[in-house]
Amino acid sequence: MKVFIVGLGLMGSSYAEKLKIKGYEIFGIDKDISIQEKAFKDGVIKGFRMDDMLDSELIILALYPKENVKFVEDHLKYFNHQILTDISGTKTHQMDSLEKILPKSIRYVSHHPMAGREKSGYDNRDIQMFEGANFLIIDEDPTDRLEVSIIKKMAMDLGFKKITKISKEKHDQLIAHTSQLTHLLAVNLMLIDNLEETKNATGDSFRDLTRIAKINERMWAQLFIDNKNVLIETVDRFIESLESLKSNILNEEQELLESKLKASKERRIKFDEHST
Amino acid sequence: MKVFIVGLGLMGSSYAEKLKIKGYEIFGIDKDISIQEKAFKDGVIKGFRMDDMLDSELIILALYPKENVKFVEDHLKYFNHQILTDISGTKTHQMDSLEKILPKSIRYVSHHPMAGREKSGYDNRDIQMFEGANFLIIDEDPTDRLEVSIIKKMAMDLGFKKITKISKEKHDQLIAHTSQLTHLLAVNLMLIDNLEETKNATGDSFRDLTRIAKINERMWAQLFIDNKNVLIETVDRFIESLESLKSNILNEEQELLESKLKASKERRIKFDEHST
Repeated sequence: MKVFIVGLGLMGSSYAEKLKIKGYEIFGIDKDISIQEKAFKDGVIKGFRMDDMLDSELIILALYPKENVKFVEDHLKYFNHQILTDISGTKTHQMDSLEKILPKSIRYVSHHPMAGREKSGYDNRDIQMFEGANFLIIDEDPTDRLEVSIIKKMAMDLGFKKITKISKEKHDQLIAHTSQLTHLLAVNLMLIDNLEETKNATGDSFRDLTRIAKINERMWAQLFIDNKNVLIETVDRFIESLESLKSNILNEEQELLESKLKASKERRIKFDEHST
Repeated sequence: MKVFIVGLGLMGSSYAEKLKIKGYEIFGIDKDISIQEKAFKDGVIKGFRMDDMLDSELIILALYPKENVKFVEDHLKYFNHQILTDISGTKTHQMDSLEKILPKSIRYVSHHPMAGREKSGYDNRDIQMFEGANFLIIDEDPTDRLEVSIIKKMAMDLGFKKITKISKEKHDQLIAHTSQLTHLLAVNLMLIDNLEETKNATGDSFRDLTRIAKINERMWAQLFIDNKNVLIETVDRFIESLESLKSNILNEEQELLESKLKASKERRIKFDEHST
């Protein structure tokens, strides 16, 4: 299968290299010319001509959400009969924009690979990144259209373990909670950290909760804003619940507090059981 | 050195076993009689008679903060000339209570081992738990009194790496941020988690940020309440900063948002450099 990847950053190049190993024929481009040349020399892609997009069977958009839309707008003539997918971390806004401009002949299926690294860019690509991770396909049809089957096969070849079909609205709601909120919390923990001694007073908890504060600021600022309505609702729900815990502490409601901590522990243990 | 440990839970028994290996003579008690007998049979302690406390050189209180104070009140006649320490996660409140009731002849130095496990109790003891971890001694005197030197030596023998001296007020402030707030955030993430699909839509971030939600609810409810004034101040500071991030997102202030994410990333990278 001939695949064309738009954007050879951390994700795009990791897709390229892993799919190549799995027998796909990989072409791709990057706005940074030196990167596409490097990827070609490394054998990660077989070529980087736009014309290769025309007769590809699968196009993967691996830019940031806004740039994906901009790219399609600027290169509309290259999109005709192919299967098209994208890896963006938020969906509703981008999918709605793309569906407005794409020709009807394009078979578009969006997906979200739930994996990442703290470092970005082609040089940090890692074919192990997807092993055992979750993969979301934005589709609600209980039976798979051909293009959905092809994306599923690609996910398996990349190493993903659990593939789930989900609506774009539900996706953005889930992501707001499990990924965007968690990143905001990590960032915020670092932002309020003004004590010189912190580094000597930490156990594993602070280290674990702030690891993802090493964030790709350009991408995440876009993702946050792109999903702002759902995200803000989620942050509000989080703050409301935190205020309630705070009031339990302030009023020394020890039993109520213990019952909440216990409920939280039991949910987390159940989560472990489900996700292994 | 003859050491008497009050409380053979996860921490007390891990101290006991590791210090025994390092050549200390360990005695101890637990309110659960079967546990002290088990520890004796396992050779973790040499005996569990209260009289052994009388001629010990070092007493370690390893109960929850409130119970430490209650224990000292109830067994005051056993405290005379020994060195006394405790491992509680919060300090100001407990130390003030203890200093009121302890005889002047007791040499009390409080400390906080910045290590733990998700599971509690004697059977989960682990002599590896302290390797490379941070250790805080509640003392502001730049020169070490004898009892401080002895606690430092004990920390080294347990495997701790970085030992820091700090005032009780600063301790409680730091802990509120690096340990108590992080646990509250993890708990709160689980409390607002009401979506069945969460388990299929998580990457490493949700898993990492909620791991410590598997919390010992009795101990932590006590610790939160014990340090409530400082903790609530810290939670308020966290919420204020989170509200500001939220407003950046709502108003699509992309550049400002990016600069905050960048600042947070740089702080986290600096933290890594300092703590390795």
